[in-house]
Amino acid sequence: MKERYEQLLLIYKEMQVVGQIGMLLGWDQEVLMPKGGIIQRSEQQGYIAGLNHKVSTNPKIGELLKEIKEHEDYAKMSEIEKRNIHLIQRDYDKVTKLPEDFVIEYTKTSVIAVEAWKEARAENDFSKFQPFLEKIFEMAKQYANYISPDIPPYEVLLDDFEPGMTSEKYKEIFTPLKEATIELIRKCKEASTQPDTSLIYRKVPLDIQDKLSNDLVPLINFNMKKGRIDVSTHPFTTGAYDDVRITTRYRVDDFTSSFFSVMHEGGHGCYEQNQAEEWRYQPVGNYCSLGLHESQSRFYENTLGRSKSFWFYYLDRFKELTGNIFSDVQYEGFIRAINAVEPSMIRVEADEVTYNLHIILRFEIERDLFAGKIEIKDLPRIWKDKMKEMLGIEVKKDSDGVLQDIHWSGGTFGYFPTYSLGNVYAAQFFNKLIKDIPDWNIKLEKGDISSILDWMKTNVQEKGNLYEAPDLVKVVTGEFPTPKYLIDFLKKKYSALYGF
Amino acid sequence: MKERYEQLLLIYKEMQVVGQIGMLLGWDQEVLMPKGGIIQRSEQQGYIAGLNHKVSTNPKIGELLKEIKEHEDYAKMSEIEKRNIHLIQRDYDKVTKLPEDFVIEYTKTSVIAVEAWKEARAENDFSKFQPFLEKIFEMAKQYANYISPDIPPYEVLLDDFEPGMTSEKYKEIFTPLKEATIELIRKCKEASTQPDTSLIYRKVPLDIQDKLSNDLVPLINFNMKKGRIDVSTHPFTTGAYDDVRITTRYRVDDFTSSFFSVMHEGGHGCYEQNQAEEWRYQPVGNYCSLGLHESQSRFYENTLGRSKSFWFYYLDRFKELTGNIFSDVQYEGFIRAINAVEPSMIRVEADEVTYNLHIILRFEIERDLFAGKIEIKDLPRIWKDKMKEMLGIEVKKDSDGVLQDIHWSGGTFGYFPTYSLGNVYAAQFFNKLIKDIPDWNIKLEKGDISSILDWMKTNVQEKGNLYEAPDLVKVVTGEFPTPKYLIDFLKKKYSALYGF
Repeated sequence: MKERYEQLLLIYKEMQVVGQIGMLLGWDQEVLMPKGGIIQRSEQQGYIAGLNHKVSTNPKIGELLKEIKEHEDYAKMSEIEKRNIHLIQRDYDKVTKLPEDFVIEYTKTSVIAVEAWKEARAENDFSKFQPFLEKIFEMAKQYANYISPDIPPYEVLLDDFEPGMTSEKYKEIFTPLKEATIELIRKCKEASTQPDTSLIYRKVPLDIQDKLSNDLVPLINFNMKKGRIDVSTHPFTTGAYDDVRITTRYRVDDFTSSFFSVMHEGGHGCYEQNQAEEWRYQPVGNYCSLGLHESQSRFYENTLGRSKSFWFYYLDRFKELTGNIFSDVQYEGFIRAINAVEPSMIRVEADEVTYNLHIILRFEIERDLFAGKIEIKDLPRIWKDKMKEMLGIEVKKDSDGVLQDIHWSGGTFGYFPTYSLGNVYAAQFFNKLIKDIPDWNIKLEKGDISSILDWMKTNVQEKGNLYEAPDLVKVVTGEFPTPKYLIDFLKKKYSALYGF
Repeated sequence: MKERYEQLLLIYKEMQVVGQIGMLLGWDQEVLMPKGGIIQRSEQQGYIAGLNHKVSTNPKIGELLKEIKEHEDYAKMSEIEKRNIHLIQRDYDKVTKLPEDFVIEYTKTSVIAVEAWKEARAENDFSKFQPFLEKIFEMAKQYANYISPDIPPYEVLLDDFEPGMTSEKYKEIFTPLKEATIELIRKCKEASTQPDTSLIYRKVPLDIQDKLSNDLVPLINFNMKKGRIDVSTHPFTTGAYDDVRITTRYRVDDFTSSFFSVMHEGGHGCYEQNQAEEWRYQPVGNYCSLGLHESQSRFYENTLGRSKSFWFYYLDRFKELTGNIFSDVQYEGFIRAINAVEPSMIRVEADEVTYNLHIILRFEIERDLFAGKIEIKDLPRIWKDKMKEMLGIEVKKDSDGVLQDIHWSGGTFGYFPTYSLGNVYAAQFFNKLIKDIPDWNIKLEKGDISSILDWMKTNVQEKGNLYEAPDLVKVVTGEFPTPKYLIDFLKKKYSALYGF
C-alpha cells in the first residue's frame, strides 16, 4: 500500500519534472531565445507536450489508483494522502478521456488560430479571425464533451479552470459586483475631486525603472536566490519552487506599467516559491487554482501596491531612487493618480475598479455563446454594445475591442472569470488579515511589509492545493467566497479617494 | 525500405531534439539559473539523461537497421544514406553494449569525482582526489571493455572521442610536433627581440570589452539571429543549427582573455550554425569529430585571430573601440605581444606554440597509465618531471599541475589529444586555403574576412559528418592528416616574429 502510494507520487513527480522542463523552454523563448530558433524550439516544445501526455496517461497511474483505493488500509490514509490521490485521479480521468488524436488536433488548431488572431488584430479585421475562432470554439465544446458529456460545455470549462465553479456561482458573484462597480464608476466620474494623472506619464529612464524593480523584489520577499526577473513583451511568471522567474516590461513614459507588473508577477512568483517544502512534487504542494493564483498577484499589486499605507512608506524611497523626477509630487495627489478610475478600452491596462467589468463582459459573452444565444459572427457588435452599456465607452476598432485578448484564439473559454475571482478572494483574505493584524496599516506605513506577507504565506500560500479554492477561502476566512468584501473594499477606498 | 529509412531518421531526430533540450538546460544552468535552482535542475538533467538513454537504445533502431541492411535495395542507397545508417549503427552498437546499471553508476561516480576534484584543487591536495581518480579510472577502463573487450582500453577511448584515431597515429603526429615545439621554444627564448607583453595587461573596462565582443561576432559571421553571446565562468559553446550560444568571460586586466575566447567559441559556434540545412537532424548533418570541431575554433582564434593580416585591418578599429587605452600602441609590437611564446603552468592560458606540449604531456601520461607503466599515486611527481623536461617549468603546486583540468575527474581519458589534433587540422586546412585563395592576406588586410570564412564553410563546415575526420582532411587538402603543416606554420610565423 505504502509502496504503491510512493510509486504513484514518483510518477507524479516525473510529470512535474517534465512540466518544469517545458516551462524553461517557454521562458527562454519569450525572454532571450534568438529569433531564428523558433522552429527548432517548437519541435522541442512539441516533443515535451507529447511526452507530457504520455507520462500523464501512463496506465500504471490508473492501476495504482485502483489498487490503493480498493486496499483495506485506504480509509486509514491521512487527509493529505487522500487529497493527493484525489487530485491525481481527477487529472488522470480528464486526460485519459481525451483521445490522443483530438489533443494533437486541438493543439495544432489553436496554434493556427493564434497566428490568425495576431494577423487579424494587426489588420483590425475580425473577418479574418472569425472562421478560426468558430473552429476553435467548436473544438472547445468537443473538449468539454469528452470530459463530461452530460454537463453543458461551458460548465465543464469553468470547472476545468477553477474546480467547483459554475456559471450560476459566477453569476451570484458578478451580478452584485457589476452593479456596484457601475455605480462606483458613476460616482467617481461625478466627483468634484478628480485626480491629476499627468505625473504617471513623466519620463523615467529605463535604468531607473530597472533600479526600482530591483528595489521592489526583495521588499515583497521574492527570493532572488530562487528566482530571476527579466524583460519580455508581456509580463509573466513561470517555474516552480527554487527556480521561479518573473518578467516585466518597461515603458519610458509610464513607470506604473513596470512597477505594478513587478508587484503583480512578484505575487505570482512568491506563491510558487512559498509552496511547502515537505509537499514538494506532490499534488498538494502545487498552487490551488487559477483564481487563487490571481488572488495573490492582485493582492500584491493592488491591495498592497496601490494602498495609501504602502506609499506612506515607499514614496520617499521612490523619490530618492528616481532622482528629481518626482521631487515636487505630493503624497495625496500621487495616491489619487495611481488609483485613478478611468473607463478604458483595454483590459490589461484597466484600473482596479473598471477591471472587473472587462471580465464580466467576457463572461457574459462566453456564457451566451455556449448557450447558443449569440453567434461568433456578431461578436464585434455585441462587444461594442456591451462596452457602451457597461463602461460608457465607444469602441472604434475591433483591435481595441473583441480582438484585444489572445485567450479565445488559444481555445481558452472560461478562463477570464478566474481573474475577477482573484480580486474577490484577495479582498476576502485582506478582510481577515486586517482582523488578525489590527495594526496592519501602521506596520505597512513603517515599511514592515513582511508581517503582511508572512500572514499570507502561512495562511494561504503554504496551504498549496490541500483544499479546493472555495474551501480554502472558507478555512482562511470562515466564509465561502463572496463578493461583498471586494465591493466594500472598493467602495470604501474610492469614496475616500474621490471624496463622495 | 524508404519508409524504414525514414522511420530510422525520425528516431534519430527524436534523439537530437532530446539532446537540444538537455543543452538548453545546461546552458541556462551555467549562464543565468538562480543559484538555489541547482537541485531542481539536476532532477531535470537526470530525467533528460535517462530519456536520452531510453531513446538511443530503443530496440526499434536495431530492428530497422537490420531490416534495411538485409534489404535487396540496400546496395542502391546513396552514399549519404549509407553514411547515415553507418553512423546510427555505430552509436547504437556502443550504447547498447553498456549495461544501464553501469551507465548510471559511471555517471554518479563521475559527479562525485568532479566534486572531489574541485575540493582537492581548492586545497591543493592531490591525496584527497587520488581515491576518486583511481575509481573513475577503473570505470573508464571498464567502459572501454564493454565497448570492445578485445582492444586495449586506451585505444577504445581514443577512437571513441576521435573515430579512427589510435595511440600509434597520435604518436606519429606528436613525436615530430613535440621535437619541433621544444626547438621553437628554445629559439624564441634565445631570440634577441623579445616581445613587450605589458600592453596586454592594461585595464580595459568591461563595457568596452563587451563592445569588442559585439563588434567581433558579426565580423566572424556568427549569426546573432540564430545565436547569442553571454558570460559564464568558463567559455563554452552549445546548441545547434538555428540556436547556437557562445559564452565568454571578462577580465578587466587582460582583454585577450575575452577577445580570443569570442574568436574561439565563435569558431565552434559558426561550425554549428553552418551545418547543411538539407541534412538537418540527420547524422551527416552533425559536426564531424571533436578534433574537427577544435580545428574550427583554433582556426578562428589563432590562425586568423592572431595573424598579422587580421590585425593590419583590425588594430585601428580596436583602438577606436577601446578609446585612448591603446592609442600609443604600434602594430608590430602589438602583434608580438599577442603572440608571445612563454612556457606557463596552465594549459588554457598557454600560447599557440607551448599549448601542444601541454596536450602531449597529458597524452603521454594517459598512455602510460593505461599501459600500467605508471600509477595514479605517482601522477603529481610525473607531472612535475614532465613539465620540467618539456617546458622547463617548475610546478610548485599540484593545483597548478596535475589538478588543473576537470577532464579526468569526469572520466574523460583520451579526450585531450583531440585538442592538438584540432591545431593540426587547422594548419593543414589553412595550407590548402592559401593555395585556393592566393591573395588571402590582402583580403584579410582589407577586412574581407568573409572570403576566408566562406572557404571554410563550403569546404569543411558544410560537409558535416559525411566523412571520418582523416578522410575529410584528405578530401579537403588531398592529404591525410600530417603535423608538417602545423610545424611549418609555427616555424615560419615565429621565426618572423622573433627574428631568428
